[in-house]
Amino acid sequence: MRPADELRDAVDEYLAALSFTSDLGELTETMRYPLEAGGKRIRPVLCLAVAEAAGGSVENALPAAAALELVHTFSLVHDDLPALDDDDERRGRPSAHVVFGEGVALLAGDALLAEALRLALTYDASAVARELVDSTLGMIGGQFRDITGDDSDLASVHRLKTGRLFLAGVRMGLETAGVSESERPPWLAFGDEVGLLFQVVDDLLDGDGYVERLGVDGARQLALECADRARAELDRVDADTSVLRELVDVLIVRTG
Amino acid sequence: MRPADELRDAVDEYLAALSFTSDLGELTETMRYPLEAGGKRIRPVLCLAVAEAAGGSVENALPAAAALELVHTFSLVHDDLPALDDDDERRGRPSAHVVFGEGVALLAGDALLAEALRLALTYDASAVARELVDSTLGMIGGQFRDITGDDSDLASVHRLKTGRLFLAGVRMGLETAGVSESERPPWLAFGDEVGLLFQVVDDLLDGDGYVERLGVDGARQLALECADRARAELDRVDADTSVLRELVDVLIVRTG
Repeated sequence: MRPADELRDAVDEYLAALSFTSDLGELTETMRYPLEAGGKRIRPVLCLAVAEAAGGSVENALPAAAALELVHTFSLVHDDLPALDDDDERRGRPSAHVVFGEGVALLAGDALLAEALRLALTYDASAVARELVDSTLGMIGGQFRDITGDDSDLASVHRLKTGRLFLAGVRMGLETAGVSESERPPWLAFGDEVGLLFQVVDDLLDGDGYVERLGVDGARQLALECADRARAELDRVDADTSVLRELVDVLIVRTG
Repeated sequence: MRPADELRDAVDEYLAALSFTSDLGELTETMRYPLEAGGKRIRPVLCLAVAEAAGGSVENALPAAAALELVHTFSLVHDDLPALDDDDERRGRPSAHVVFGEGVALLAGDALLAEALRLALTYDASAVARELVDSTLGMIGGQFRDITGDDSDLASVHRLKTGRLFLAGVRMGLETAGVSESERPPWLAFGDEVGLLFQVVDDLLDGDGYVERLGVDGARQLALECADRARAELDRVDADTSVLRELVDVLIVRTG
């Protein structure tokens, strides 16, 4: 089992070497800018770690993992636009639309989504592409609820906006490893818990969301419960899940 | 062979009955607004007419045809945003972003693209989805060249921005009809000519593009030459292509 930091390096290398459609011309420069800003690559690492724990290969899961990161990056580029969150900075650098202009950033986001699908379609079976599309639609549904203020059920907004891509990472990892449907439930339940855990930790770092709802101590308590439930799901799996446990530990450490 | 207006009715009915992912919630209202504005449905009709002429069924080609119209509609919704063309009207009605706000229109465009892919992935083979993604990327590349002023080669901008979706209509129609690669060249050459013909006719109606480049008479001449070449390609096909000829005639009549 490769540790999480090696998996992250594998994702970074794969993304750096990724070719985009030549028809896009210099738009690819705007697409690479947010993609190369780094970040934790937690969604693709989760996908690779699940694939390897489930008996698949990291190499075979890399296109699926990278596709997931492209979808995540597309959502950040569009989210940062003035029409949505109007964020001028992302990861300590000017946002894509500040550097390249709003119109070009909008098109770069569109192209990142389409390239993600192109990558998912490199598999013979279409299950990976289907999962990527379904989770993207769920994420967009969550973004819509978020901006229209329909957040009466915070958990359901986050389950869509953040959770769907985490769950997709697990599903696509299982798919590339050839895990049958009947064996998937504990893995998927683990994916749900990790998605929620990530969101709660993110809110603890930003002081919003669950912190506003539950207070700092309440949010920390929720994060610990999520981590416990995630580990309990891994206990139900007959596999070496050490790297997945490491991911949970890394997330929980960030809660302070 | 069903005539073009019957094919258009079939597209309209299919789109009106189309279900979107429930996770999208009320965002589907914003997605349906531009989709129900009508329009000529020329891309999906082309797809259906090719499928039927090539020995396939309209029913089997309808998801591909509708997916193409969703991609076209996504591109219109994003194009109309202030970040790009800043058009407040579309087909005589306020644009989506005027009615629903910029942020919601942006997300609705994203969701239309993802739903298009979801629809293309309902086929067992992934060739339809691959073609849809490739043509979408080509179209985005054309939009990028268009807004960045790199239109030194007008023909190449239009081949991407407009032509790729026309060609995709032909390709996807052939795919759903099971036409082999070796039989496709004349059909695809026809698709290229129809895409260019549509663009020239559009420019004649708007008084821009090829009209600025060639003058009204020059553009009309180019349209007639495209139509002749399109018909000549159909002559090379051993099939009843009467409906495709009808589409060419309808386009050419619009040049006045």
